[in-house]
Amino acid sequence: MYKNFVNEYEGFVKKFNLTLKNYVNMSDFPSLYKPIQYILSSEGKRLRPFLFYLSSKVYNVPNDKIFQLALSVEMLHCFSLVHDDIMDEDDLRRGKETIHKKWDLSTAMLVGDAIFALVYKNINELNNTKKVLDAFSKETINLCEGQSLDKIFESKNSISIDDYLNMIELKTGSLLSLSCKLGGILGDITEDEINKLGNFGNFIGKAFQIQDDILEIYSDSLIMGKSLGSDIIFSKKTFLTCLANELNSKKWNLLNNQIYDKDLNNYTLPKLREFFDKHGIKTIAENKIKDFLDQGLSCIDFLPKDKQLFFSNYIKMILERKN
Amino acid sequence: MYKNFVNEYEGFVKKFNLTLKNYVNMSDFPSLYKPIQYILSSEGKRLRPFLFYLSSKVYNVPNDKIFQLALSVEMLHCFSLVHDDIMDEDDLRRGKETIHKKWDLSTAMLVGDAIFALVYKNINELNNTKKVLDAFSKETINLCEGQSLDKIFESKNSISIDDYLNMIELKTGSLLSLSCKLGGILGDITEDEINKLGNFGNFIGKAFQIQDDILEIYSDSLIMGKSLGSDIIFSKKTFLTCLANELNSKKWNLLNNQIYDKDLNNYTLPKLREFFDKHGIKTIAENKIKDFLDQGLSCIDFLPKDKQLFFSNYIKMILERKN
Repeated sequence: MYKNFVNEYEGFVKKFNLTLKNYVNMSDFPSLYKPIQYILSSEGKRLRPFLFYLSSKVYNVPNDKIFQLALSVEMLHCFSLVHDDIMDEDDLRRGKETIHKKWDLSTAMLVGDAIFALVYKNINELNNTKKVLDAFSKETINLCEGQSLDKIFESKNSISIDDYLNMIELKTGSLLSLSCKLGGILGDITEDEINKLGNFGNFIGKAFQIQDDILEIYSDSLIMGKSLGSDIIFSKKTFLTCLANELNSKKWNLLNNQIYDKDLNNYTLPKLREFFDKHGIKTIAENKIKDFLDQGLSCIDFLPKDKQLFFSNYIKMILERKN
Repeated sequence: MYKNFVNEYEGFVKKFNLTLKNYVNMSDFPSLYKPIQYILSSEGKRLRPFLFYLSSKVYNVPNDKIFQLALSVEMLHCFSLVHDDIMDEDDLRRGKETIHKKWDLSTAMLVGDAIFALVYKNINELNNTKKVLDAFSKETINLCEGQSLDKIFESKNSISIDDYLNMIELKTGSLLSLSCKLGGILGDITEDEINKLGNFGNFIGKAFQIQDDILEIYSDSLIMGKSLGSDIIFSKKTFLTCLANELNSKKWNLLNNQIYDKDLNNYTLPKLREFFDKHGIKTIAENKIKDFLDQGLSCIDFLPKDKQLFFSNYIKMILERKN
């Protein structure tokens, strides 16, 4: 059963990648469309368009409609990645050089802007798109609000867990929420049920973000694949660091001073792990993930059992792939 | 008659500025909405929303509809300004510090992105917006293509006049073209007539850009109000510099080497003016402006004479304000 689900995911990704790869025509303005093609054809996991696919399957939306709108879902994600990478000064994305690194800042900005315009152009080729457009605009604004908070938090010493969770609901939750809502919108269900699907997306978004926060500290391979320095580790807020500060601010600050600017893999990370383990912070974070996933699933208990399974399988797949 | 027109413009700007100023609610996320408010309430000339107002008046579109969509026209312009200022590293805009200068790069990027999303959110609050949305997406993509060419041209020595005109049609023409077309779209006229209005916008966009190019060299006051260094003067392509290179590449390159890195106001500009005057380049540019304006006006000769006057008055007003 679950194996079929994973097969369906892999089939979706294969077909979707082909559509996405051929979406832009590079002939006219290679200075713009070559980097657009570069990011659209990079090896993404397509988790957002696949979540949208699942929510559409609940309501038997025809495949051609799903595949067309899935393009906008993934392109919106790509737009945010390209601009995010500029802001975070990241050099690597999906195993390739980021656009501002391979080309330059202006190219990366314009690529993001143009992809954003393509998102809307593509939506507008469908019919009856008022609610779809509303959802895209609303969640994009939420995304910007979340990213803005994230950047502001970097310059602050102390961020409460509540503020942190609010920020990741906006930053990570909004595109997952959008992906879930869109299936309901195309399925023409009630506003109330659409919102429940959206809430599911928000909860799993928070859960996945905390999972990422844990892996950033506990998985060597992930750290090594990214271009993180300890300054970024310390300025970027995570669930673990906010919790450490909230539970034991004095010792946490002392530790930060000790490990700042030290060798990341051989000194800093082991010290952080020791601290988080000793104070039960990792366990609290893991429980929070379970909690959010349960809350998310309870939002969609109005769906028939066999349809709920789409989403619990999705969660299972993501957690497995992240470990 | 013309005085009435200018009064109407000033009345429009006053009313429009009030609407625009109150558009965003700053309470929730000041880190994002304070700079958005800052750019939206800066002293713009509102030339694009006013052009849209005129094209709507031709078709007796109700005022409330005009004012709502005019917000999206101006916000699209603001989005492009905020991102443009980052790319051009400009410190000043509309007499105030640019957002990336007053805040930082991330804020300016997110402010642009969020305003872009607000453009679409606002459009979607109207009814029957398919053609409106199409026009916005298409012209935004044109704008990005134009900006991309503009940046690419900076790194090239020699750009032909044809390539330059093609670039400014995209970069400067697209939002003026959009503003003209929208009135026709709301007025529900034929596709053919909408395109004629759009072509008018493209032609006057090119004319105004060449006018700007001339003023950049010939008007002391403009230069002094901007933060231009001679490096920017030399890398940014203008109609005058492309023409100089096309007509007499050898002498032009010789001059560039002579005046590069010299005192801008006391040496470089006088030398440039001397060169452009001596080779008749300023005169050719001025004739080109007249030519584009005539071509633009001939695109809208299908309109009743009294409606054509809206647009000829608009041209007159802009040319006067620029001198």
